[in-house]
Amino acid sequence: MNDIPFTHKLSKLSKQQDSSLCIGFDPDILKLPVSMRGKADAIFAFCKEIVDATADLVCAYKPQIAYFSANRAENQLELLIQHIHRNHPQIPVILDAKRGDIGSTAEQYAVEAFDRYQADAVTVNPYMGFDSIEPYLKYANKGVFVLCRTSNPGGSDLQFLPLKSDTQVLGKDELLFERVASLAAGAWNLHGQLGLVVGATFPEEIARVRQIVGANMPLLIPGIGAQGGDIEKTIQAGGGEQLVINSSRQILYASSESDFAEAARRVAIHTRDAIRQAQKNLKDKD
Amino acid sequence: MNDIPFTHKLSKLSKQQDSSLCIGFDPDILKLPVSMRGKADAIFAFCKEIVDATADLVCAYKPQIAYFSANRAENQLELLIQHIHRNHPQIPVILDAKRGDIGSTAEQYAVEAFDRYQADAVTVNPYMGFDSIEPYLKYANKGVFVLCRTSNPGGSDLQFLPLKSDTQVLGKDELLFERVASLAAGAWNLHGQLGLVVGATFPEEIARVRQIVGANMPLLIPGIGAQGGDIEKTIQAGGGEQLVINSSRQILYASSESDFAEAARRVAIHTRDAIRQAQKNLKDKD
Repeated sequence: MNDIPFTHKLSKLSKQQDSSLCIGFDPDILKLPVSMRGKADAIFAFCKEIVDATADLVCAYKPQIAYFSANRAENQLELLIQHIHRNHPQIPVILDAKRGDIGSTAEQYAVEAFDRYQADAVTVNPYMGFDSIEPYLKYANKGVFVLCRTSNPGGSDLQFLPLKSDTQVLGKDELLFERVASLAAGAWNLHGQLGLVVGATFPEEIARVRQIVGANMPLLIPGIGAQGGDIEKTIQAGGGEQLVINSSRQILYASSESDFAEAARRVAIHTRDAIRQAQKNLKDKD
Repeated sequence: MNDIPFTHKLSKLSKQQDSSLCIGFDPDILKLPVSMRGKADAIFAFCKEIVDATADLVCAYKPQIAYFSANRAENQLELLIQHIHRNHPQIPVILDAKRGDIGSTAEQYAVEAFDRYQADAVTVNPYMGFDSIEPYLKYANKGVFVLCRTSNPGGSDLQFLPLKSDTQVLGKDELLFERVASLAAGAWNLHGQLGLVVGATFPEEIARVRQIVGANMPLLIPGIGAQGGDIEKTIQAGGGEQLVINSSRQILYASSESDFAEAARRVAIHTRDAIRQAQKNLKDKD
């Protein structure tokens, strides 16, 4: 499935499975089922079981690389992504790495994400500007999600700063994250590979981003579940299409017993259905 | 040497060796000496030889993690840092990773940098705000360099944006990187562990950052050498003390033959001496 552009792979599966749910893999070894802890490939085994229990429910998977790197488990991350590609080739994998560096170094990070890990898409940080993003765009069929408005408390420290500008955006002072949205939808988006990361904890700002970038840009929305984002408000703000709504901890740690994969499936169904219902409500309103 | 705060370790060695030179390890396998290429531990062996040939010349080493990760060489990065700590325990190691993520994930990246790799300091990206930096500060003796004004062409895309603010900074509109400098010198710097990354390609902006943060905050300055930064102007702008001036490619690839370590030493001496001379010129002027 490497010959299909990421955005097509994503929207095809999203329609096929009628799902905008992305499951994020943040495998904290202290939260793994007791029976698995201490085993050499515990992280891989844990994530693999959840993949196999939820593959018909999602539009994407999003492993978070920090949880693998902190545990010397790069090899298990490779195995996990291989497992997804081999057994569920229709499901795109977004590597959540949030890298950002000068061009020559960004090239190495692109090799890491796309050649080594064989991810279909990657998250990147915009602080260092366009040449920190450009090397990823050379991989024609890959997707790149640029951090825009993040779901954490400190997200406002810089992202919410108003810029000095004669032009207003949607009738208000332009904020830093809105400039990132404009750049990602405009000058930076050379071949239509870009999407944005916008936290579910700020529905009003999702709406502003959607107005800036138009209906076709994929938005990756973390913050549902453990971080407190509201599904109904998120869908109303982000529009019904081109959404990748991520839940990690609430699904991964639905049970700490040996039934963790079934429990994850139950919560994943519940979350997918809540998203579906919100999307239906939005359509009915239109 | 893990019981000494990073900033002390850095300034002690800098005085002892009369050096503000940091050598950056960006080991591109395509540029390694022909005799080394293809060997399983080529990256480690290459970097180790350069360490042993330059240990009396530097104030720090700065491995860039992307070059290791792109080559499945995390183990070689661990070995390299172990080698430095065992054989040259006075030399601090700055892991150039530029991570940035929500608090719970930043904790994992802090584990990666400080527990796994045993780095003395790390570079981080400020775009996600204070809670993406806070987890690193829990490691009492470690240092954290926050990206402020980067040396790459795209660095201006966001960092140079003027903010809407009633107060001016040094008589001008405040720019985004100046806000980062103010936060890093103020509210974010809970225990005095922070430094800033400011590219050598913008001496005027180094001077503004130094005015904002005062004389005691370490500035990590990449961009000397291959990226074209001017040593004399950099020193004049940054002040004579608390500077970590990084050169990577010009030293690493001084020769592509088997004399690469000697050649690296020659260029390192030349660079260290140019920095020394510029520092002397600045002192004489005062």
